[in-house]
Amino acid sequence: MLNPQYEAMLSNKNIIRVLSEFAVQRGKEIGYENVFDYTLGNPSVPVPDSFNQSIIRLIGEKSSMDLHGYSQSLGIAEVRQAVADSLNKRFGMNYTKDNIFMSIGAAGAIAHAVRLVTVPGDEILTFAPFFPEYNPYINMAGAVLKVVPPNTEDFQINFEAFEQMIGLKTMAVLINTPNNPSGIVYSTKTIQRLAEVLKAKSEELGHTIYLISDEPYREIVFSGVDAPFVSRYYDNTICCYSFSKSLSVPGERIGYVAINPACPDAEKMIVMCGQISRGIGHNCPASIIQWAVAENLDVTADISVYEKNMNLLYDALTELGFEVVKPGGTFYIFPKALEEDAVAFCEKGKKYDFIAVPADSFGCPGYIRLSYCIETEKVERSIEALRRFVKEEYGR
Amino acid sequence: MLNPQYEAMLSNKNIIRVLSEFAVQRGKEIGYENVFDYTLGNPSVPVPDSFNQSIIRLIGEKSSMDLHGYSQSLGIAEVRQAVADSLNKRFGMNYTKDNIFMSIGAAGAIAHAVRLVTVPGDEILTFAPFFPEYNPYINMAGAVLKVVPPNTEDFQINFEAFEQMIGLKTMAVLINTPNNPSGIVYSTKTIQRLAEVLKAKSEELGHTIYLISDEPYREIVFSGVDAPFVSRYYDNTICCYSFSKSLSVPGERIGYVAINPACPDAEKMIVMCGQISRGIGHNCPASIIQWAVAENLDVTADISVYEKNMNLLYDALTELGFEVVKPGGTFYIFPKALEEDAVAFCEKGKKYDFIAVPADSFGCPGYIRLSYCIETEKVERSIEALRRFVKEEYGR
Repeated sequence: MLNPQYEAMLSNKNIIRVLSEFAVQRGKEIGYENVFDYTLGNPSVPVPDSFNQSIIRLIGEKSSMDLHGYSQSLGIAEVRQAVADSLNKRFGMNYTKDNIFMSIGAAGAIAHAVRLVTVPGDEILTFAPFFPEYNPYINMAGAVLKVVPPNTEDFQINFEAFEQMIGLKTMAVLINTPNNPSGIVYSTKTIQRLAEVLKAKSEELGHTIYLISDEPYREIVFSGVDAPFVSRYYDNTICCYSFSKSLSVPGERIGYVAINPACPDAEKMIVMCGQISRGIGHNCPASIIQWAVAENLDVTADISVYEKNMNLLYDALTELGFEVVKPGGTFYIFPKALEEDAVAFCEKGKKYDFIAVPADSFGCPGYIRLSYCIETEKVERSIEALRRFVKEEYGR
Repeated sequence: MLNPQYEAMLSNKNIIRVLSEFAVQRGKEIGYENVFDYTLGNPSVPVPDSFNQSIIRLIGEKSSMDLHGYSQSLGIAEVRQAVADSLNKRFGMNYTKDNIFMSIGAAGAIAHAVRLVTVPGDEILTFAPFFPEYNPYINMAGAVLKVVPPNTEDFQINFEAFEQMIGLKTMAVLINTPNNPSGIVYSTKTIQRLAEVLKAKSEELGHTIYLISDEPYREIVFSGVDAPFVSRYYDNTICCYSFSKSLSVPGERIGYVAINPACPDAEKMIVMCGQISRGIGHNCPASIIQWAVAENLDVTADISVYEKNMNLLYDALTELGFEVVKPGGTFYIFPKALEEDAVAFCEKGKKYDFIAVPADSFGCPGYIRLSYCIETEKVERSIEALRRFVKEEYGR
């Protein structure tokens, strides 16, 4: 007998995947360069050359045992220290290696964070719009994900609804800033207020409410945007990072958990991550990738293209009368559809080979997500398609 | 509040780790070359040069997107097909890529296998002596590990005890051949009889009993030893493999699940692995490592040193009057201690800088495990230490 929970999941079609497959299929008919595929958050800029050069040099310099041999399940000690040093230098923190756990990307990091601070039945709150994979990440650890309704005015936090939803079972709050799918960056004011609420509610409830901060887009912030380092503002923060977007290496599956040293149990929690790993078959990232990342902590791929694409799209959407909040980072933009049913809107877009994702599964019906990690030239051409789409379907 | 289950695990000291740390510490006093450290199963021979050359060539040849970009969570399709082709050629099977799921080593593979075929409360049987990490692998998925007592005569299966222990809750049997810690390889006769029992009992109970075959030592088999490919003998076999030992790349954390195409649900189960991955933050191995492994499926590190070491140790142990079954593979040997309490025996060995692991946690009290993945020259010197140890402590 197969596990019925996982068997049942097979019939849940992921809308992003379905639309992405449509785009690829359509590309086979008219050439993929003519499909304005805004479905996937797959970094389009190449890895920094220094990353590849690190790998080649490591192969020449390190012994087989040092390079490919067993690493501690918490991650390679020198790599963990290098991550701590880089965070300290950049954000004025005081991490040591004992606050860092190397993970299989942000998904691996969140899998550990959730298991650290919940037992089955506990609740984790997140804010709409949110990354739909949070559902399996949290539910399959036995915890319950509760979604605070969006503040559609500026996509900062809806504090009123949030405070009402915190209860005895709330063990953690999960945020994602810069945000997938809205592209919004939480301001210092938002993070400060969030920290105040968490402190007050922790005291009131008699247990710590942890802040799990999912930060794969941390390095993709646009000019002039206020982007605070979340862990500075709340002691009990578990930072979950991935190098996928900043270094354009999503296939290499590497990230980390960083626990604020001011959190009373910080070091114990990192050692607990090693125990959690044993039960879920996680281990740690590939050793050669750990070493290469450690040498490239302060570089990024050429992520400037994302801001350029964002500005093009933001201007066009605004001009065409879309309601849209200007993104502060990421490679997503999140306009309101031109009719109430975003699924119907995206369906109509297909006729113009303009492939967007309706945001129902992101907890924000009526909105659409565009992932603009594509060539700028294609963004420019897509705007012509969008113009025709809007004019012919909505008379604008 | 931290999860009490994982917190409690922190106080369980792993005996292998404790002894290994002792050996390293002692090495700082007298030079590690003088410590006969038989604690860890950490491959000592270097990676085949072709593996490193593959990585360097891939960096030159593949685009950043192809090499480092997102891969499917089941693994890269071409890599899965290459694994299938290699298994088919070598073992006369007929796998396709749809029977292969790329995993984070054998630990990742087993994490998926257990979740595929059990729900919480179900039982999995294994045979003593067994790898103690099976406990967290299985218990933390909510299933229950039951251990069939050993057949200490030849460390093949104790079928009498086994058949009595199979019950309504038995959903899978987990075997490890070549075996850690005994070094024994299950014979064709053993595997055939195991298959017969599983078929008969599945019919009797009205549900399939799956065979989970943990095969990280599959390529390390000594000359003249009968080492059947388990999946050929039982349709409902889930093969869990790791490249750690065969390619000497344990730090790169790569392996796979291969489900026999004759298993009625084979392809569905592979897709289910992708769903399981979402819940445990597993994803898949690093893409560059997947590509490199695909080019090195039919090579191994120079594993001949392990047979040489085994013969030296087997002859010495036998000569010194130890009860010991000759290993057929791996880099472990598993003699009976010279007193009933193997922990006391190993404690005495420390005086002679001869560091062995008592097998209580392997489900076989009174025995000790020696991991001889060390230099042959050191094995030779260790035999002198063993002679003194046995003479001075036991008068032999």
